Amino acid sequence: MSKKTWKISELAGFVNGEWHGEQDVLITGLVDLDNASEGQIAFVSDRKRLEELQKIEASALIVPEGCLDAPVPFIEVKDPVLAAAIIHNHFLEDDYVAGGIEPSVVIGEECLIAEDVTVGAFVAIGNRVNIGHRVTVGAGSVIGDDVVLGNDTVIHPNVTVLNRSVLGARVIVHSGTVIGSDGFGYAHDETGRHVKRPHVGFVQIDDDVELGANVCVDRATFGRTWIKRGTKIDNLVQVAHNVVIGEDSILVSQSGISGSTVLGNGVIMGGKSAISGHLVIGNRVTIAAKAGVASNQDDGKVIAGFPAIPHKKWLRAATALQKLPDLIKEVRELRKMIVTENVDENPDQD
Amino acid sequence: MSKKTWKISELAGFVNGEWHGEQDVLITGLVDLDNASEGQIAFVSDRKRLEELQKIEASALIVPEGCLDAPVPFIEVKDPVLAAAIIHNHFLEDDYVAGGIEPSVVIGEECLIAEDVTVGAFVAIGNRVNIGHRVTVGAGSVIGDDVVLGNDTVIHPNVTVLNRSVLGARVIVHSGTVIGSDGFGYAHDETGRHVKRPHVGFVQIDDDVELGANVCVDRATFGRTWIKRGTKIDNLVQVAHNVVIGEDSILVSQSGISGSTVLGNGVIMGGKSAISGHLVIGNRVTIAAKAGVASNQDDGKVIAGFPAIPHKKWLRAATALQKLPDLIKEVRELRKMIVTENVDENPDQD
Amino acid sequence: MSKKTWKISELAGFVNGEWHGEQDVLITGLVDLDNASEGQIAFVSDRKRLEELQKIEASALIVPEGCLDAPVPFIEVKDPVLAAAIIHNHFLEDDYVAGGIEPSVVIGEECLIAEDVTVGAFVAIGNRVNIGHRVTVGAGSVIGDDVVLGNDTVIHPNVTVLNRSVLGARVIVHSGTVIGSDGFGYAHDETGRHVKRPHVGFVQIDDDVELGANVCVDRATFGRTWIKRGTKIDNLVQVAHNVVIGEDSILVSQSGISGSTVLGNGVIMGGKSAISGHLVIGNRVTIAAKAGVASNQDDGKVIAGFPAIPHKKWLRAATALQKLPDLIKEVRELRKMIVTENVDENPDQD
Repeated sequence: MSKKTWKISELAGFVNGEWHGEQDVLITGLVDLDNASEGQIAFVSDRKRLEELQKIEASALIVPEGCLDAPVPFIEVKDPVLAAAIIHNHFLEDDYVAGGIEPSVVIGEECLIAEDVTVGAFVAIGNRVNIGHRVTVGAGSVIGDDVVLGNDTVIHPNVTVLNRSVLGARVIVHSGTVIGSDGFGYAHDETGRHVKRPHVGFVQIDDDVELGANVCVDRATFGRTWIKRGTKIDNLVQVAHNVVIGEDSILVSQSGISGSTVLGNGVIMGGKSAISGHLVIGNRVTIAAKAGVASNQDDGKVIAGFPAIPHKKWLRAATALQKLPDLIKEVRELRKMIVTENVDENPDQD
Repeated sequence: MSKKTWKISELAGFVNGEWHGEQDVLITGLVDLDNASEGQIAFVSDRKRLEELQKIEASALIVPEGCLDAPVPFIEVKDPVLAAAIIHNHFLEDDYVAGGIEPSVVIGEECLIAEDVTVGAFVAIGNRVNIGHRVTVGAGSVIGDDVVLGNDTVIHPNVTVLNRSVLGARVIVHSGTVIGSDGFGYAHDETGRHVKRPHVGFVQIDDDVELGANVCVDRATFGRTWIKRGTKIDNLVQVAHNVVIGEDSILVSQSGISGSTVLGNGVIMGGKSAISGHLVIGNRVTIAAKAGVASNQDDGKVIAGFPAIPHKKWLRAATALQKLPDLIKEVRELRKMIVTENVDENPDQD
Repeated sequence: MSKKTWKISELAGFVNGEWHGEQDVLITGLVDLDNASEGQIAFVSDRKRLEELQKIEASALIVPEGCLDAPVPFIEVKDPVLAAAIIHNHFLEDDYVAGGIEPSVVIGEECLIAEDVTVGAFVAIGNRVNIGHRVTVGAGSVIGDDVVLGNDTVIHPNVTVLNRSVLGARVIVHSGTVIGSDGFGYAHDETGRHVKRPHVGFVQIDDDVELGANVCVDRATFGRTWIKRGTKIDNLVQVAHNVVIGEDSILVSQSGISGSTVLGNGVIMGGKSAISGHLVIGNRVTIAAKAGVASNQDDGKVIAGFPAIPHKKWLRAATALQKLPDLIKEVRELRKMIVTENVDENPDQD
């Protein structure tokens, strides 16, 4: 981490915020409220939280619009979390210092590797690999034949990027992730044995995508599995063969997408949610945690449950489920009441 | 990939199909319809799809029985996906060319390694390891002590095969997968602390099994965890200690099996499905996606939900759940109607 | 494994058990009933199982209290599984023999590594790393900068421990696991793009924690992600940024915890269960398999379903769900009966 210092007024400029209080206070870093100390700027996303604070260790604050007062100088912004992220990235931003290629690295033939890269120990790079400027490949990662890694991409340690995968610029891949393994595709013969379908396609990952740890992105059977610009994928997520994920989508941990399904832009998949194969999911569809999507979804749908239905409907149904045992009793009673009524005229019967 | 060329009549011979149209057309590869170009054979599994096609780029087609006409020469078969897989494998089949053992590889003592293997960079091989003919071990993989890898087995990069695991012939293990880690077994003392139960068993994986990426197969506490011939396991699947999986089973991504459960042959586990421990699941049981199986299952059962019940019953129940909020209202109304009736004779009451 | 031999009376002493039968019988190992052979002690947790046994291959048994007779000498204990684990660990216990640092290992600057460690091939160790006594790091693992590994900790092969992670004593980390990857945290700008929130926190893992294979433990955004003493985590589990897990908790395979959630001591998470972010889960809360917890939970709660409710309530509801389709029919009938009654006086109507 670099040592940078900005005046609060300069920080406000980064985020088009309005600053209040002493303008010359010097800030050396950004942190959250719980870990703040002198010289740092912290952020409060919730006005109420600010009012409850007994003591502020930070020297300045980022606060939501409408906060008129704070015990320290502050910057007023529409979205404090966004402003904090932007300012924090300014503090951490460094000129890239290329670490070079560690002596143990094994490199195949006909590779095109920029001079300003950082490649860690025990990285195995295949043939005809193309690595752009300022790329980092962590120790123990394996880069297969004909792979392309765009400028400023970061491959963390122990990642596996298999043959013919194409990664754009500023892609981040966390440890343990596997890109380009064979999809799960078999034909079945008359005796019930499974005949492997060769997977001759590839994986394409566009600019600014981030993949968490231990994620799996399978290569296509034919053609490509494709994750588009700006999509962020959490740990332990499964992306099957021939899936296409649009731009700026969010896949939370342990979610999974079956083969050949196409997601639009801005889709959100909650944790542990799943989508069946060969579906089309529209733009900005939001899938609740643990949902299972078994049908196509129009743009903007918010769905939950399995099979997934509109979220509000699911919420009512899930809540109602708790009342079901009592409902069953009640219906039994009602039946008795009705039957009893019908026989009331005959008092000899019970 | 090799460069091979066959006449359509020869290809038909590989799959016992009937060919129609010009017999001498030469085919250089197999591909799907979307990616087809001249000289290639494509396949259509669905007759309707064939009729809708505006233009066929392929020079030949594999079509389902009963397709009497096509704009290009075609092979008629019972199962076009199966025929395509078989023909595609013919095109890709190559004589194994042993790449030898990369100089960085570290090998323990008393190993028995066939001469015609391919072992990538930074592979660590333990003591007394036995590696068969035409085995490939990808870069960065770790092979523990006393491991056996049968002929033609492929270990992709960054795989971990731990001590005493025994893999048969033609096994395929994708990147990130761990075979032989300790099972999750503890005894619990009076104070609530967990005492590790040693795991001294092993993992046995029989011929023609394929394991996806980032799969976990734990070693047995005692005895063995056992995956039998021809079973195919998708990415991110959990196979706990002492599990036995029969032949030709299919475990879709993110499914999991708890300890000591025994699966029959031809079992299908849908994505994200789970089976509790110490159960017996019969042959050809089909478990729907996201199901949770908590009891033994007879041969051939098709189950869904949690706790899993017959699939059709679950489907009805899951659909009915959406109507539950309305049902609760309706029952409330009925009660009112009944109560109102009963009190009608006494108009003073509300 | 060492070759040790104890008299049954000595073994009984390890577990405060009462021994019966010939006291001088020499035992050379512990095993389960299915794999037992002469000279070994086996264990039976269930008295009924003992009665059903046709033949006992073991030379001695560990049995539950109240078993008055057995065909071989036996040790009577309260908890045979616990006693077996303790005795088994005695048999396997060995003086640590340091294997030293394999010549290929790459070590950064200013590291403090005890002399009696075992570090396998192709391990990359960063700068300022502190490794305690009798630590084992398996082949292919990557240890980042400023990492601390306490005494007797075992890192299995192909593990990734990223910068500034602090692991206590006797921690066990299985293969494929990633400790300290960035958490999944983004701010969102006005155009719907995701702005990465830097993750400058770290991961702390206390003494006697065990992490299974392919587990993910993300570093904190600020501060720390913290797993406390004695907690055991199964394969493929997700622990998000800033999560705190108390002591002696159990997280079964494929479970997951979202960001900033705090678990008490002795919490049990069943397989595939999930907890939302920013929640507080009390001590000794038990979460059933596949449950989804969306609200804070008091100490000792036993919960199931999604959203999770008391386990017994969920069990009734889940069972009732199967009856729902019939209930809907029944209510329809009741309505007919009521309506029919009401119109009975007018026989012209149907």
